[in-house]
Amino acid sequence: MAEKIYENEWIFIEQEAADIPWLKIFTQQQAKEMSDCDEATQQEIFRVLLILEKAMIRYFKPDKINIASFANYLPRVHWHIMARYRGDSHFPEPMWGARQREADLDIPEMTGFLENLSVLLDEAGK
Amino acid sequence: MAEKIYENEWIFIEQEAADIPWLKIFTQQQAKEMSDCDEATQQEIFRVLLILEKAMIRYFKPDKINIASFANYLPRVHWHIMARYRGDSHFPEPMWGARQREADLDIPEMTGFLENLSVLLDEAGK
Repeated sequence: MAEKIYENEWIFIEQEAADIPWLKIFTQQQAKEMSDCDEATQQEIFRVLLILEKAMIRYFKPDKINIASFANYLPRVHWHIMARYRGDSHFPEPMWGARQREADLDIPEMTGFLENLSVLLDEAGK
Repeated sequence: MAEKIYENEWIFIEQEAADIPWLKIFTQQQAKEMSDCDEATQQEIFRVLLILEKAMIRYFKPDKINIASFANYLPRVHWHIMARYRGDSHFPEPMWGARQREADLDIPEMTGFLENLSVLLDEAGK
């Protein structure tokens, strides 16, 4: 189950229930493809991806950030951004690939990250 | 084997050998994460993703576009953009997911698409 943790005029963000830090960015405007969205929405997605990536690197210290946009089951644009670790369940495969192991991770609490999300997204780089 | 099919000051594009139309965009600047790249490179990646997406939809008429950036094996920023079809080998799973079937696709030749790539990327939206 996903939980909405932020929204503004163009996008909203959900937290994916997973062993790793995993956020999903949806467009408020319902569209099948990124290029169907208006330019303000496209730019907001890219802005938020970069801010989230930097913040996730700083806070979670992952081995790699992964980003993806598929929506093959339900054609509604959304983007995944994930903090990946060598010891996570699928690394170095994508989270949609073959499971590699039982994850045994010691990573910072998501709560501390989420507390700063509004400050990050509402004040940074607008 | 991938083949370089376009490049400019910030990025280059390779064609992935696959049953579906699949392009990979690399940054000329070697960086581990997107947020490590300079702003001109970041913006060029996003610009090219949108142009390629629109052009791939128009030319290949896929059921969905998929976009991803992982680089877990070799930490060097690059982006995948794929034209996906209901009948392709993995749909609706991502191309990194479980194989669903033997692909039996009748799609336009990549050659015609590649011929227009420079026009698209050098003249559109600069």
